[in-house]
Amino acid sequence: MSQTTFGYLTAANAPLFTDLYELRMLQAYINQDHNPTATFSLFVRDLPPNRGYMIAAGLEQAIHYIETLSFGERALEYLSEEGFDEAFLEYLSGFEFTGEVRALPEGTPVFVNEPLLEVTAPIAQAQLLETAVINQIGYQSLIATKASRMREIIDRNGDGQQLIDFGSRRAHGTDAGLKAARAAYIGGFDGTSNVAAGEAFEIPTSGTMAHSWVQSFEDERDSFETFVDEYGDESVLLIDTYDTVRGAELAKEVADEAGASIRGVRLDSGDLAALSQDVDAVLPDVDQFISSGIDESKIDDFFERGGVGAGFGPGTALVTSTDAPKVEGVYKLVAVERDGEMRPTMKLSTGKVTYPGAKSVRRTESDGRYTGDVIGLRDEDLPGEEQLVTVIDGGERVIGLPDLETSKARARTHRRKLPDSSRRLEDPEPYDVRISDELQQETEELQRELEARRTE
Amino acid sequence: MSQTTFGYLTAANAPLFTDLYELRMLQAYINQDHNPTATFSLFVRDLPPNRGYMIAAGLEQAIHYIETLSFGERALEYLSEEGFDEAFLEYLSGFEFTGEVRALPEGTPVFVNEPLLEVTAPIAQAQLLETAVINQIGYQSLIATKASRMREIIDRNGDGQQLIDFGSRRAHGTDAGLKAARAAYIGGFDGTSNVAAGEAFEIPTSGTMAHSWVQSFEDERDSFETFVDEYGDESVLLIDTYDTVRGAELAKEVADEAGASIRGVRLDSGDLAALSQDVDAVLPDVDQFISSGIDESKIDDFFERGGVGAGFGPGTALVTSTDAPKVEGVYKLVAVERDGEMRPTMKLSTGKVTYPGAKSVRRTESDGRYTGDVIGLRDEDLPGEEQLVTVIDGGERVIGLPDLETSKARARTHRRKLPDSSRRLEDPEPYDVRISDELQQETEELQRELEARRTE
Repeated sequence: MSQTTFGYLTAANAPLFTDLYELRMLQAYINQDHNPTATFSLFVRDLPPNRGYMIAAGLEQAIHYIETLSFGERALEYLSEEGFDEAFLEYLSGFEFTGEVRALPEGTPVFVNEPLLEVTAPIAQAQLLETAVINQIGYQSLIATKASRMREIIDRNGDGQQLIDFGSRRAHGTDAGLKAARAAYIGGFDGTSNVAAGEAFEIPTSGTMAHSWVQSFEDERDSFETFVDEYGDESVLLIDTYDTVRGAELAKEVADEAGASIRGVRLDSGDLAALSQDVDAVLPDVDQFISSGIDESKIDDFFERGGVGAGFGPGTALVTSTDAPKVEGVYKLVAVERDGEMRPTMKLSTGKVTYPGAKSVRRTESDGRYTGDVIGLRDEDLPGEEQLVTVIDGGERVIGLPDLETSKARARTHRRKLPDSSRRLEDPEPYDVRISDELQQETEELQRELEARRTE
Repeated sequence: MSQTTFGYLTAANAPLFTDLYELRMLQAYINQDHNPTATFSLFVRDLPPNRGYMIAAGLEQAIHYIETLSFGERALEYLSEEGFDEAFLEYLSGFEFTGEVRALPEGTPVFVNEPLLEVTAPIAQAQLLETAVINQIGYQSLIATKASRMREIIDRNGDGQQLIDFGSRRAHGTDAGLKAARAAYIGGFDGTSNVAAGEAFEIPTSGTMAHSWVQSFEDERDSFETFVDEYGDESVLLIDTYDTVRGAELAKEVADEAGASIRGVRLDSGDLAALSQDVDAVLPDVDQFISSGIDESKIDDFFERGGVGAGFGPGTALVTSTDAPKVEGVYKLVAVERDGEMRPTMKLSTGKVTYPGAKSVRRTESDGRYTGDVIGLRDEDLPGEEQLVTVIDGGERVIGLPDLETSKARARTHRRKLPDSSRRLEDPEPYDVRISDELQQETEELQRELEARRTE
């Protein structure tokens, strides 16, 4: 069935958002009667360049996916056409997640090797989640982190300026447009231009006008007058279509003549720091919104050069995380049931260690600042506060997920507790993440065992 | 209404996938009775780094969006809550696209300033499309281009190796996962691992097994035996979990014992070129599929160093276009009706020229190779073949869109007609794109006129 849909996943095709190999393994797990309990861990092996931390995000969508994952007629029909057999399709038609999910709450700073999500369930169930949960948590964490960097520079050098996501048009598809708005909000943004994201996630939306509005009129004055006639004091006028300073003067004249105190003006080209100062001289009481190629270094430069602005509208750089567009989340089998017991497991691969077993992540604090993490075995006795929370147990939700405002507040509070050196925008120092003695020992023992067996 | 949906846009919220400023302008266009006919042009001002061309893609989704765009109850209710007024909501409830769309067919090479899409309609209608059409055409063109580079290097140095998209988990959200599969197929890939993309777009799907399959068994041999028991000659075994060459030997033993001639093995770590030669010595008749960090330069290097492989599975590098993760598509007002006539329009901005007016893109050819393009006025008499096709006229489809196979064939044929120098993977030479004398003259006249008015 060929689809031309604009941007979608419905309950009917969402279960197919997976890699074929997951379903091929699943069929074999089921048909070969090999479905032991397994624990998978979602983590990153490296932080993206110039990141001293990441902000966890996307859990709500991952949990929703896990809780609603089921195979309806359309999905089953396609899989039948693709050669999956009747017995397996029968299994899929009754698919339901019955396992356990532990996770880092959204807004939590996260570091290498720390599980963002840990799933324990019959291996067929746990395996199937891989593609979708990496997709959602990976992307949203990438964007929450990028947003957090922009908020960081405003905290440091600015004056509480607004940050509004303007990136939907340049996002990689529609889901990225929506999820970038959501993740950026968690990471420290104040709103989005994306109306669908506003509706879906109750994020404040914001919007001004485009150059096309101005150009569609005989002259700029007409265009401003018409807009102010429609929106009055709510008007934000784009003033750089022909000449920014002249645009500011015109905005002032039009507002004065209409007896309106317009809310703001937008600058979208040229030397933004310099122009904003000229505009401020003309319109000292009007907020300036700054767009065009905004990222954390542009914001930094803007402040450094004395720019005057009430808000920024980052777009492409935010939603594609242009300077670091990927984070390679992996979802690895770390333990599997054998003879009735959960046994740690790992693969042998040069340079890539996956620590075996279900984990604990403890964070220690001193004088209101985080001092370091220790990753240990799940049941190990360790100092510090446990970061992983059980979200689903026995297939049932055991906690409500925090709302967006709570996750956003968490990101802000926790970010500020991180060492300054790990929050630097360039060459941050690695945050102190230690592997517990027990976990280290278990890792080495397993490695030796597997290597011994390899040379048998 | 708060949503937790995993990845979606349905008919109910798709019309809200737009920037708020579009709707704010729309309300003012309608309420202020300023709705002249307008032409908008979607194009790029720069090619991404190291690109000598791009491959147009995403038109099918853009057209589907335009043809189905309408506002139902849920969208209207949200907009009402957001303060849009009744008269405007009434207009939206009857919204329907009645204009004209011209476009470059998918698979067509495209260069700077050439319209990928040109829309002529009452400005409120044409304006509203901006965010969504840039989003779909921008991303898919970016990925079709990235895919085309990988196919190029195989055409040049390889032996027709398969290219399979393995990127869904690392794509920026679910829509990117689906659309990357589609765009990569147009750009020269043979299939995808994404099952939902297979179903939606009738793209061949492909999948093997993960390390978790192997690790879930007591030993590697068990895991291979069980898989071969399930899939027989169709089996593709992942052989690098513990030791790649030992894995190859084991695969051979297991296949021999089962009397199966397995289809292939997959290598996912280590020195892939060297290991593939060792594996080839063990399994000379078995296809090797190569994954792990694959991009065009890795493929190039693999061939250079004598690697042996039947196929590659690029993931992250493909779906995020990691080396060039953005393309800044713009959708600019180029003409507007005034006094019953379409008048060219542009903004004045240092360094960024937008050529005014509806366009023609002509491509000339000599001895089976493209020699250059000329961008001119729509009705200008120019040499070469017109690249823009009218897709919608008076709100009605006037042509069927080509199927994916046709677009893929077009991309291949047209890419091969481009000068070799523009197809280089690094520092390609700019393809010859000329602005016609008439368009140049019109641009300069309009510029002078606007500058004269600015200094009034």
